[in-house]
Amino acid sequence: MKRPSIRSVSGGVTAPRGFRAAGLHAGIKKKRKPDMALIVSDTPCAAAGALTTNQVVAAPVTISRTTLQKGRAWGILGNSGSANCCTGPAGHRAALAVRQAAARQLGIPAGQLLIASTGAIGKPLPVPRMKRAIPTLIRRLSRTGSAAAARGILTTDLITKSAAVRFKTGGRTITIGGIAKGSGMIDPAMATMLCFITTDAPVGATDLKRAVREQVQKTFNQITVDGQMSTNDTVFLLANGAAGGPQLAPGRPGWQPFCEGLRQAMERLARLIAEDGEGATALVTIEVAGTSSNRAAQQIAKQVANAPLVKTMVAGRDPNWGRVAATVGASPVRFNPRRLEIRLGGIPVYRNGGPVRVSKGTLKRRFSGKTPSIQIRVGSGSGRGRALTCDLTHGYIRINAKYN
Amino acid sequence: MKRPSIRSVSGGVTAPRGFRAAGLHAGIKKKRKPDMALIVSDTPCAAAGALTTNQVVAAPVTISRTTLQKGRAWGILGNSGSANCCTGPAGHRAALAVRQAAARQLGIPAGQLLIASTGAIGKPLPVPRMKRAIPTLIRRLSRTGSAAAARGILTTDLITKSAAVRFKTGGRTITIGGIAKGSGMIDPAMATMLCFITTDAPVGATDLKRAVREQVQKTFNQITVDGQMSTNDTVFLLANGAAGGPQLAPGRPGWQPFCEGLRQAMERLARLIAEDGEGATALVTIEVAGTSSNRAAQQIAKQVANAPLVKTMVAGRDPNWGRVAATVGASPVRFNPRRLEIRLGGIPVYRNGGPVRVSKGTLKRRFSGKTPSIQIRVGSGSGRGRALTCDLTHGYIRINAKYN
Repeated sequence: MKRPSIRSVSGGVTAPRGFRAAGLHAGIKKKRKPDMALIVSDTPCAAAGALTTNQVVAAPVTISRTTLQKGRAWGILGNSGSANCCTGPAGHRAALAVRQAAARQLGIPAGQLLIASTGAIGKPLPVPRMKRAIPTLIRRLSRTGSAAAARGILTTDLITKSAAVRFKTGGRTITIGGIAKGSGMIDPAMATMLCFITTDAPVGATDLKRAVREQVQKTFNQITVDGQMSTNDTVFLLANGAAGGPQLAPGRPGWQPFCEGLRQAMERLARLIAEDGEGATALVTIEVAGTSSNRAAQQIAKQVANAPLVKTMVAGRDPNWGRVAATVGASPVRFNPRRLEIRLGGIPVYRNGGPVRVSKGTLKRRFSGKTPSIQIRVGSGSGRGRALTCDLTHGYIRINAKYN
Repeated sequence: MKRPSIRSVSGGVTAPRGFRAAGLHAGIKKKRKPDMALIVSDTPCAAAGALTTNQVVAAPVTISRTTLQKGRAWGILGNSGSANCCTGPAGHRAALAVRQAAARQLGIPAGQLLIASTGAIGKPLPVPRMKRAIPTLIRRLSRTGSAAAARGILTTDLITKSAAVRFKTGGRTITIGGIAKGSGMIDPAMATMLCFITTDAPVGATDLKRAVREQVQKTFNQITVDGQMSTNDTVFLLANGAAGGPQLAPGRPGWQPFCEGLRQAMERLARLIAEDGEGATALVTIEVAGTSSNRAAQQIAKQVANAPLVKTMVAGRDPNWGRVAATVGASPVRFNPRRLEIRLGGIPVYRNGGPVRVSKGTLKRRFSGKTPSIQIRVGSGSGRGRALTCDLTHGYIRINAKYN
């Protein structure tokens, strides 16, 4: 059977049929930058998602978890400028009040509007300002509003993050689109602060949930900026079925390309997040092989990706592979150190317990540019893992020493 | 029973009777800085130590492990400028050759000379240069040579690290002295690259080992600079018994003050290491309470101490406690988030699920200076833990982006 070709398209979350979006400055941020975003479907959607596993979670995470359990939503209301976390019962009430106001004016049940917040922790939501902005936000909803919505959820991000893919299956054209924000506080078990994905594919909530989990594991969970898991990490996926036809489901035609399309869209957003890590000048790929399980390889890859000494070495494009050896050795994953092999940009630098003779000039050339890579082998097992990260630079310090 | 008073003295590793030390530039480092150190006792010592638990270990670690197993040594030969790690069989032979040359000229068995290296990984030891330097190194051994030896093991350290304590017990005066080097790559299960301690107390090797392990756990294992465990981390303790009298041992008079004196010397060296962390402007204390075990509290404290977002927040002296909440929440240690309490410099900022009203001016004043502190409570358990760390600054990046 011929595999349908999946192609990139523009349009982000409004590329799929039946979705409108908008973003604006409501006054949550002091600076005059967009700080609210709204995405709404013309019809109710199957909804699925993945939320932070942090024990300290923001009010919108708690509230949206309930909506995701029911698997049905019309849209997503997001904001930047406040994480609405550690804000107590007042913060919970504030989130409900804003959601209630938006849902009423949209004419949808409040329980079917997903919400997500990002920004400083402990800062209350300015409810009156947000309520005042809602009518304008709704009026501006449009089929070309994805970029405005993407801007509305940025914090220290330098670029908006958007992706969309399209493919044909069974006579239908199916589109998947997404926007995201990332930057700092990116890591374990969820690699973006916020990611909103829409699709016009007809998919049931249970299958949608399965697809999200699988593809998040392959994409967002492999990136890391600073090993920090946020209180607000959120991925939402809405499927409104506007493409028509019978439901996509595991084992049926169209399911494989749907999962692959979802993976491609998430992968693109994940790479944009890692590339735009706070202060980043490089997108680093760390590939690990030879473990007994993929999980073990993944664990080593993440450990290397989060090691400050490795991340600063990449910042200086300094092929100081000893730091990679030391970091791999510090991993709880057991291996025979004599079997350890390290390559930088594909060039062997360490094997059989000793350094490989290689011209420093050649090495420096290969371990340079915007996408340096590190390859690690720890044995002959079939386990493989990968992590994407950025370098650790003066920019990260500058941004994070004075955030508030 | 009156506890003997323990007082600080000068003199480092040559403060105890019967030890001489020296340090010089042998040419391992390109710059004309000291890079070799030697400490020798007039008589054979009981020897104990703690070595890195990294799976990738340097040649001197493997070699010294054998000496420690026998529990007997005359001295310590240390070098900076090369870690002699990942250097293969040639690196192992190089370490043995240098040790052999020094032992022969000292007139002691080579197997009773401990060795330790620090510096870049993968760089071979320049054996001929080191051998050429040995006669001078031995000639310079003196009762006032501790500072020279301390300089001989520094890498990116800005200050030499030295401590010594003295107390009387059973009519004897006992002295414990130490030197250390730290800076980057400081963390788990061993918090210094190199630490050499001498004492004139008479202690058997088995008891000495026990004392080292216990006090390392209370001191060096509570500090962290960047969460990186080195391939060369080493603590050596030599006891030559020159103070005379019967052996100190658990349950006998003098054992408690000996352990307490050892703890004080190690604590002082550990603080000096954290204070002198690469690029550090602050020595941060993180105290955790309310867990079910000390181990769990320690785990949370270390996690907070290693969080880049917390370390940059300290760099900016920005009382952005939300980052502390997020980091504690990301810990694998389970707790009820509603019981979480955070104080900065002793001032409550978060409890009962919400922020505590406090003037930002007051908070900024208390969370400033060179020793800011963070207090965390996660419940009503009796577990307590502590971690010492430094802030993450532009200095760390500058030092580590170009190390070689």
